[in-house]
Amino acid sequence: MTDTVSVEQQARESDLVDRVLRSFDDCTDPRLKQVMQALVRHLHAFVREVRLTEEEWAKGIEFLTATGHITDARRQEFILLSDVLGASMQTIAINNEAYGDATEATVFGPFFIENSPEIEIGGDIAFGASGEPCWVEGTVTDSRGNPLPGARIEVWEADDDGRYDVQYDDDRTAARAHLFTDAQGRYSFWGITPTPYPIPHDGPVGRMLAAVGRSPMRAAHLHFMVSAPDQRTLVTHIFVRGDDLLDKDTVFGVKDSLVKEFQRQPAGTPTPDGRDLADREWSRVRFDIVLAPAGA
Amino acid sequence: MTDTVSVEQQARESDLVDRVLRSFDDCTDPRLKQVMQALVRHLHAFVREVRLTEEEWAKGIEFLTATGHITDARRQEFILLSDVLGASMQTIAINNEAYGDATEATVFGPFFIENSPEIEIGGDIAFGASGEPCWVEGTVTDSRGNPLPGARIEVWEADDDGRYDVQYDDDRTAARAHLFTDAQGRYSFWGITPTPYPIPHDGPVGRMLAAVGRSPMRAAHLHFMVSAPDQRTLVTHIFVRGDDLLDKDTVFGVKDSLVKEFQRQPAGTPTPDGRDLADREWSRVRFDIVLAPAGA
Ligand SMILES: [Fe+2]
Ligand SMILES: [Fe+2]
Repeated sequence: MTDTVSVEQQARESDLVDRVLRSFDDCTDPRLKQVMQALVRHLHAFVREVRLTEEEWAKGIEFLTATGHITDARRQEFILLSDVLGASMQTIAINNEAYGDATEATVFGPFFIENSPEIEIGGDIAFGASGEPCWVEGTVTDSRGNPLPGARIEVWEADDDGRYDVQYDDDRTAARAHLFTDAQGRYSFWGITPTPYPIPHDGPVGRMLAAVGRSPMRAAHLHFMVSAPDQRTLVTHIFVRGDDLLDKDTVFGVKDSLVKEFQRQPAGTPTPDGRDLADREWSRVRFDIVLAPAGA
Repeated sequence: MTDTVSVEQQARESDLVDRVLRSFDDCTDPRLKQVMQALVRHLHAFVREVRLTEEEWAKGIEFLTATGHITDARRQEFILLSDVLGASMQTIAINNEAYGDATEATVFGPFFIENSPEIEIGGDIAFGASGEPCWVEGTVTDSRGNPLPGARIEVWEADDDGRYDVQYDDDRTAARAHLFTDAQGRYSFWGITPTPYPIPHDGPVGRMLAAVGRSPMRAAHLHFMVSAPDQRTLVTHIFVRGDDLLDKDTVFGVKDSLVKEFQRQPAGTPTPDGRDLADREWSRVRFDIVLAPAGA
């Protein structure tokens, strides 16, 4: 609060905060009451600290309205908003505290969809999506190093035009799949070498980023969600070592431990499964995944 | 933050806040930068204090999405949300500091619309809206007591079913109008004796109020917006002395100075302008309005 606010005015403002807090006194769900009262305290602290003008308040209402109106089953602008304000990453940090060598989590993002196609180990997730082939392999183990057979791995990524399948108008399903680890906890698949892409920036969140001089670009990445019985479900990405955007990812998702070497393979290099890529270059990456125990 | 959060974890979380704050460093609009960085600080402080779970985060995203989807040209759920969290009233408190005897401001609400019909002094704003007739009269003066001729007065209110015209499906315009003060700064009109009403509570905001055990009811009121050259535009209501809801108004809009005596007039009492109300009861109220100077 600025020094110029009179004592009487400060008292009026804090009396209002108290009245709003008391309006939640009859809430019978203690957690809901705690969350709502904390929200009220921090919201009012924000409004009072910046001395929000009525015009700015109206712009905020307009911004939220536009964010709601662009959101539909395929476009989730509120998740984008949470992402670019770092709130998504903070929630993930709070709920996925470091546990030994367990693989670190990062943002979920708005592009996961249920019911991805299943592939066999060694299968191809591209389903026609454009991009350079990338062989991905690794293991899934628990935090004591035991392999986890039958762990479910969901993977999804953008094509090399920087777009996910759901961003096209034709209902395609591409560059996403799920598979299960084998009896030794191993997995592998063909994906696409990740390329940087902008988050959808033709909406209110993109206009906000432009207004504050921020880039909408994300560092190149490949999404994973890995689940197994009695293990904490892991939502994460792997990033590409050497990508210029690693320190400027617009959703603050990069962690050092998730940056991996995508080894360049010149055209003609034999592939692990004998696939014939003719004269195409390809890449390969290893990602060994360690799950924390559930409830850790 | 709870005591159980380790020092390392706290450092990770506050490092993330710092990274998000720095992402606004290139913003060339100093005020926008200040507002966005303060928003980030308070948003992260909230998330960290309550240790927001991923499930709660997802519920928040769902809530905002539903709030956006119910909002249209006639229904503004984000304003309702701001109202029931006291953020609207706080913004008004900050921007309309007490100035001498100037009439106090209160919430704008979601039901104002542009281009209300104009009436003459003494005219009727009801345009067919149901409710007991109420004679409203007063003056508009500046803070030194000088009458303000030609001041524009917008008035709007609910009918006695508790609904504004815009809440009906038939495009009616009723219980709203504007008029101008005469050469002596006087005004009068026929309105409807205000009755309490619930804010629209069939949407996400109403479900939130129900979940926390709060009533959706507003104390009975009549809305005013008064503007005149060189004066601070006043957005306010008058409330009805004796209304049980005065201390439980769900948007925190009541101020003592805005509670007025609506005098009961038994059937047959002569009306100020000779209007024949047959066997109907009516009421009358005086509201003398004092505007603060613009920029005060
Ligand atoms: Fe992504
Ligand atoms: Fe109202």
